[in-house]
Amino acid sequence: MVRVGIIGASGYAGGELVRYLLMHPKVEITYLASGTYEGRPLSDAYPSFLGQNLPLCEKYDAKHALEKADFFFQAQGNGIGMKVAPELISNGRKLIDIPADFRLKDLNQHKKFYAMNHTAPELVAESVYAISELHPKEIAKARLVANPGCYATSAILALAPLMKQKQICLGSVIVDSKSGVSGAGRSKLEVSGLFCEVNEGIKAYGVTTHRHTPEIEQELTLLAGEQVTLNFTPHLIPMNRGILSTAYASAGQGKTLPSASEMVELYKEFYAGKPFMQVLDCGKQPCTKNVLGTNFCHIGVVVDERTNRIIVTCAIDNMGKGAAGQAVQNMNLMLGFDETTGLMSPAVYP
Amino acid sequence: MVRVGIIGASGYAGGELVRYLLMHPKVEITYLASGTYEGRPLSDAYPSFLGQNLPLCEKYDAKHALEKADFFFQAQGNGIGMKVAPELISNGRKLIDIPADFRLKDLNQHKKFYAMNHTAPELVAESVYAISELHPKEIAKARLVANPGCYATSAILALAPLMKQKQICLGSVIVDSKSGVSGAGRSKLEVSGLFCEVNEGIKAYGVTTHRHTPEIEQELTLLAGEQVTLNFTPHLIPMNRGILSTAYASAGQGKTLPSASEMVELYKEFYAGKPFMQVLDCGKQPCTKNVLGTNFCHIGVVVDERTNRIIVTCAIDNMGKGAAGQAVQNMNLMLGFDETTGLMSPAVYP
Amino acid sequence: MVRVGIIGASGYAGGELVRYLLMHPKVEITYLASGTYEGRPLSDAYPSFLGQNLPLCEKYDAKHALEKADFFFQAQGNGIGMKVAPELISNGRKLIDIPADFRLKDLNQHKKFYAMNHTAPELVAESVYAISELHPKEIAKARLVANPGCYATSAILALAPLMKQKQICLGSVIVDSKSGVSGAGRSKLEVSGLFCEVNEGIKAYGVTTHRHTPEIEQELTLLAGEQVTLNFTPHLIPMNRGILSTAYASAGQGKTLPSASEMVELYKEFYAGKPFMQVLDCGKQPCTKNVLGTNFCHIGVVVDERTNRIIVTCAIDNMGKGAAGQAVQNMNLMLGFDETTGLMSPAVYP
Amino acid sequence: MVRVGIIGASGYAGGELVRYLLMHPKVEITYLASGTYEGRPLSDAYPSFLGQNLPLCEKYDAKHALEKADFFFQAQGNGIGMKVAPELISNGRKLIDIPADFRLKDLNQHKKFYAMNHTAPELVAESVYAISELHPKEIAKARLVANPGCYATSAILALAPLMKQKQICLGSVIVDSKSGVSGAGRSKLEVSGLFCEVNEGIKAYGVTTHRHTPEIEQELTLLAGEQVTLNFTPHLIPMNRGILSTAYASAGQGKTLPSASEMVELYKEFYAGKPFMQVLDCGKQPCTKNVLGTNFCHIGVVVDERTNRIIVTCAIDNMGKGAAGQAVQNMNLMLGFDETTGLMSPAVYP
Repeated sequence: MVRVGIIGASGYAGGELVRYLLMHPKVEITYLASGTYEGRPLSDAYPSFLGQNLPLCEKYDAKHALEKADFFFQAQGNGIGMKVAPELISNGRKLIDIPADFRLKDLNQHKKFYAMNHTAPELVAESVYAISELHPKEIAKARLVANPGCYATSAILALAPLMKQKQICLGSVIVDSKSGVSGAGRSKLEVSGLFCEVNEGIKAYGVTTHRHTPEIEQELTLLAGEQVTLNFTPHLIPMNRGILSTAYASAGQGKTLPSASEMVELYKEFYAGKPFMQVLDCGKQPCTKNVLGTNFCHIGVVVDERTNRIIVTCAIDNMGKGAAGQAVQNMNLMLGFDETTGLMSPAVYP
Repeated sequence: MVRVGIIGASGYAGGELVRYLLMHPKVEITYLASGTYEGRPLSDAYPSFLGQNLPLCEKYDAKHALEKADFFFQAQGNGIGMKVAPELISNGRKLIDIPADFRLKDLNQHKKFYAMNHTAPELVAESVYAISELHPKEIAKARLVANPGCYATSAILALAPLMKQKQICLGSVIVDSKSGVSGAGRSKLEVSGLFCEVNEGIKAYGVTTHRHTPEIEQELTLLAGEQVTLNFTPHLIPMNRGILSTAYASAGQGKTLPSASEMVELYKEFYAGKPFMQVLDCGKQPCTKNVLGTNFCHIGVVVDERTNRIIVTCAIDNMGKGAAGQAVQNMNLMLGFDETTGLMSPAVYP
Repeated sequence: MVRVGIIGASGYAGGELVRYLLMHPKVEITYLASGTYEGRPLSDAYPSFLGQNLPLCEKYDAKHALEKADFFFQAQGNGIGMKVAPELISNGRKLIDIPADFRLKDLNQHKKFYAMNHTAPELVAESVYAISELHPKEIAKARLVANPGCYATSAILALAPLMKQKQICLGSVIVDSKSGVSGAGRSKLEVSGLFCEVNEGIKAYGVTTHRHTPEIEQELTLLAGEQVTLNFTPHLIPMNRGILSTAYASAGQGKTLPSASEMVELYKEFYAGKPFMQVLDCGKQPCTKNVLGTNFCHIGVVVDERTNRIIVTCAIDNMGKGAAGQAVQNMNLMLGFDETTGLMSPAVYP
Repeated sequence: MVRVGIIGASGYAGGELVRYLLMHPKVEITYLASGTYEGRPLSDAYPSFLGQNLPLCEKYDAKHALEKADFFFQAQGNGIGMKVAPELISNGRKLIDIPADFRLKDLNQHKKFYAMNHTAPELVAESVYAISELHPKEIAKARLVANPGCYATSAILALAPLMKQKQICLGSVIVDSKSGVSGAGRSKLEVSGLFCEVNEGIKAYGVTTHRHTPEIEQELTLLAGEQVTLNFTPHLIPMNRGILSTAYASAGQGKTLPSASEMVELYKEFYAGKPFMQVLDCGKQPCTKNVLGTNFCHIGVVVDERTNRIIVTCAIDNMGKGAAGQAVQNMNLMLGFDETTGLMSPAVYP
C-alpha cells in the first residue's frame, strides 16, 4: 500500500480525492492537511466520510508530511503548489498539483492569468501537463504532474483527434462549455454562489478571458504543431457536477470534411485502448449525467455537410476526469499501476 | 375589452397565455378550447388558476369560437393552425399561431422539417413572421401572425443588429443555445422528460437538424439581404424556463471588428425605443433568471480582439419572449394598444 | 397614487416588494433605501428591474424618507424596525415591518429568540400581528403592522380553523414545514447556502428552537383562547421559493373527528370570502408550485379515521403570502383599497 | 466469484444494483433480464455502463436464468417476485425481491394495498423482511428475502430503538417523510413526473394511504411487542435521490423522556457495531446529500422538553439503503460475506 497525503483536503477537490482514494485498493490515505479543520476529523467538513478510516486533519507541515506519506496531491489552491513542491520533490516524493501552478509553460502567461510571480520556475519546465490519455509515458516518468483544468480537459479531449488531421481550419475553433457549479469550490463565499442565485438560471462568464484558455491553446498547439488560437466561452448551469463542451471547427479552405460516420471512426481509433474514453456511436449525444462521479469521458461527433463544420460534444465530470479522477489516473500511471485501478465504478444514476 | 379566445389552453404555452392575458387590462378571456379538459375548469390542469375568473374549457368548435371571441391564439400544436386559421380569418377574426404552421415561407422547408402537407398555403404567404421588434408595422396590419420559435427569437434578436452591418462574415455564424425544459411541452411523455433524467445533467440534441434552424436562417437572410447559413446547436439544461443563446461571428475577410464598447453602442442604437430589449453595459453578461416569466430580452456583447470574433449572449424566457409574451406583444400591436400593455411585470426573482 | 418607500430594498424581500408594487395600480415607489447600493439603480442589484421606472437607491435618512413617501415598508432586517418606526409613525406615516421586531408581544420572548433589547416597546403593544385574513379590521386601522413570518403564516393559516373548534387536542399539534431557500436572504454568506451544498439534499434545522415557534404559538393561543404549545420543525429543500407546512393534530380525548369531507367544508366556510385562500376539494393536495410568485394560499385537508388525526397541508410562497405579498395585502387594507389590488396575477407555471 | 442474476435490470433499482455489484469484489453479474432491452447491452438503457463488462439483456426465462446464475435479485416490479420465486427457490437458488410481493405477512393487507391475489402465499411465510441491522441472523439463513421499501427502511431505522423502550406512547407516532423522485421509477410516464412539474415544488401524496404504511406498522409492532398504528405522510421534493424521514413520538402518559444527550447515547448503543448506521452527535442534523449513492444511514435525535416529544430525523438514499444498497448488504449476509463488502464507498459530494 502506497502512503498518500492530500494537501487541502477540505475543499471540494480534496474531498473528491479522498473519495476516490478510499475506493483504491493499492493506496492508503495517511496524511490530510487542512488549515480550516486542523485537529478535526474530515467528517466535520464532509459527514459523508463518517464511518471511514481516515487520519485527522492537520495544518500543513512539510517535515511531518514527509514522514507520513510518499505520494502527494495538492488541492488547496493556486500558489500553494509552487510553495510545497520544491521540498517534497527534492525529498524524493511525487506530487500531483491539482490547481494551476505548473500548467502553463509560459511564465508570462501564468503571471498574466493568475496575477502572481512564480517561485518555482524550474519545476514548471520539468512538470508534465497531464491529460492522461495524451501523455501516458511522460506522466509515468514524472515526479511532478500538473493536473489539467476541468474545462481544459474537456476541450482538449474533444479536439485532440482533429489537431493532427489537416482537415480543419485551426483558426476556426470555438469551444462553448457549460459547467456545473462545484468548479467554483467551497471556500468562495459570494452572492453569486448562493443557491437561489444559481438555481433556475444560466449565464456566461469570463467570456474571452477565462484562465483555462491559455492551457487549452498550449496543449492544442503542441498537438497541432502550429499555433492554435480559439474562443472559449464558459457558462454556469444549475447543477452540481459535469461539464459539457461543445466544440466547433470548420473545414480548411477548399476542403470537405469526412462524413459523420468516418469522423466517429477516426475518433474511436484515436482513443482506442483508452478505457475511460467512450466515443459514442453516430447519432448519439453524450449527457453529463452518465459520467457523474466518474473518470469517464463521453464524446459525440457530428458533421454538418451544409456548413462543412464539425461539432464535437464532450461530457466529463468536472470533479472526476476534470480534477480528482484524472489525478488518480495520473497517480496510477506514476506508480506503475493499471491506469483504471480504483476508477472503474460507474456513474451514480439517476 | 377585446374578447380573446385560446385554442389549446391546457398546454404550457396555453397556460402561459392565460397568465399574461389575466394581467392584461384591455382584454378578457372569453373562450378556452382544450380537448383534454373539455367541460372542466382550467384550474384542473393548472391549480395556479384557482380563484381566477375564466370560462370552462370546451372542445374546439369553430362556430362557437366565432361567437365567443374576436381575437384568437392557437397554442395546441403543429398542424392545428392551418386547420383553424382559414375559417377564423375569413370570418374577420385575427389569429396568432404559436406553433410553426405559418413560420416558414418555403413550403418545402415546412414539409421537410415538420413532415406534413400544408393545407392553407395561401395563408402562409399572407402571414407575418413576427419578431415584434423587427416588423411592428407589418404586424400591426396583419390578420394572421406566425409567432416565432423560442430558440429562433433568441438567435434572431442576438444577431439582427449585425446583419445589416457588413462587418461580419455571414458564413461564420454559430448559435449555441441552452434551454430550460418547458419548451418540450406538457403532453410529450417520454423517459427523457422525467425529472430524474433531466436533473443534474446537460446534453445537446437535434445537432444540425433542429426545426428552428430554417426559421432563423429565413429571417437573418431577409435582414442581411443575402443567404445566411449557420450552425444552430440546442442544449437542454436542468431548469424550467429560459434560453441563453451564445452567438459567434467572425469579422469578414480582411476586416477588423469595432471594439466591444462600440459594438455595445451599436446594439443599443439598434434597439433604441424597444422597451423589452435591454442591451447590457459593456462587461456585463445576461442571466436567464432576470427575464423569467417576462417578455424582456437581455443582451450582452463581447468582442475578442485576439480572434476578431464577436460573441453575443441573449437571454429570454422561452415561455415569455419566446412564446406567450411575444404573442401578447404582437396582439397589442395588432389591436393598436401600446406594445407594453400588460407586459411590464418584472421577473420573479430569485 | 400613494407614495411608497422601501427601507432595505436590495434584499430578497425588498426586491420582491418592489416587484409587487410595480404591478400595483394605486401606488408609486418614490423612495428606495439600501446601504449597499447607495446612489445606484436597484437594477444593479436585480437586473430584472432593467426597463422599470424606479428611484435610485439611497442610504436611509429619516428626513429625506419623510419627504419622499407616505407609506413605508421596512425589509432590511431584525432590529431596524424598532429604530425607524418611532420617527416614521410619529410623523404620520404608516409602516409595515417585514422582519420580527414587532411580532412578539412578550418582550421576553423577543429577547430570548432575537438576542436584542427592544428600543420601542410601546410600539410593540400598538402594532398588529397581521395575518390579513384573521385580523382585517385591526389591520385597516393600524399605523404599524408586524408582517408575520413565512413559516408562521403557513402554520397559522393551516391550523386557524381548528383552533376555535373543540374537536382537537391542542397539545397534539405538530407542524412539519419544508421551505425553499430564499428565506435565508441574500446577505447571509455561508458555506451552507452555496448552490452545491443545498442542491440535491434535504435536512431539518432549528429543530425545537426555530424563531417562528413563539409567533405561531402566540397567534394560535389567541385563536384558541387557551395556551397552545407545539412542535415546529423546519426543513430546507432544494428550491428557491415555497413553503409546504404539514400540520398534524389528534382528536381530543374521547372525541371522534368529523370526516374528511366535513372538515374540508369547515375549512371552506372558515375562509369563505377570502380571495387568496383556496381550500382544495377533498382528496387533493396542494403544491407550492401553484402559488409561486403569488399571495395565494392552497390548503389540503385529510382526516385519518384509523388514528383519529387530521393532517392539513398548506402551500404558500415564502416570499409572497409569507412576506411581500401579504405585506402588500396588508397595505391594501391599511389604505382602504380592495385587498386584492395588484395581487391577483397567477403563479408563473411551470 | 458468485454468479449473480438481475431480473428487471433496466429499471432504476435494477441499474443501481448493477452499479453496486460492479463494485463488489466477490460476485460477478452473469445474467441480466429486461424485456425492454432484450438482446441489447444495458448501456443502451444507461450509457453510464459504457466500458463495463456486462452480459447482454435477455427476456426472462427461468431455465436460462438457472443455468446462468446462482443468486438472484428481482427488481422488475410488484407481482413478478411471486411468479419467479417458486422455481428459483425450488432449484436451490437464493432470491432477494426488491418490490413488495413478500413484505406483508398478512395476505389481506397485501391484497388491499397492492390489488392483486398472491400466487405464492407459502413463500410469504418463509421469507424474511430484511432490514439488515435488525434481523441479520434470519437473513443469513434465508432463501428468500423481502427487501424493505425505501420509506419503510427510513421510518423503521428511525424508530426501532424506541420500540422496546417503554418511554414513548406508541399511539403518538407520526412519520413525515420527504423523498427524491427516483422512487417513482423509470417506467411510469405521467405528467406529474415531468421535470417541469416536479422542479421547484413540493407536495404531499398518498396521505394516510401510502403502501409503505402497513410494512412500517408490521415491523414496528414486531419490535414493540404490541400493535403500533401511526401516520405516515410522504412528500415529493425536487431532487433525484434521498429520503429524510422526520419521526415524532410523545412520552407515554405521566412519563418524562430522557434528555437529548441520553437519547443520542441510547441510539448509539442500539446501533453499535452496525457500520452503516451513523447516529450523529447531539445537536447535529443529517442531510440526505451525505449518504447519496451509498448504503449509509444518518440519524439525528432531538428531545423537546417543552412538549415532552422526541424528534428523530433519518437520512438514507432511497436507491441505496432504501433499495439496492440494502439488497447487496442482505446478499452479503446470505452469502456469508462481511456485510460491508463492496458497499463502503462514500457519497459523491457535492
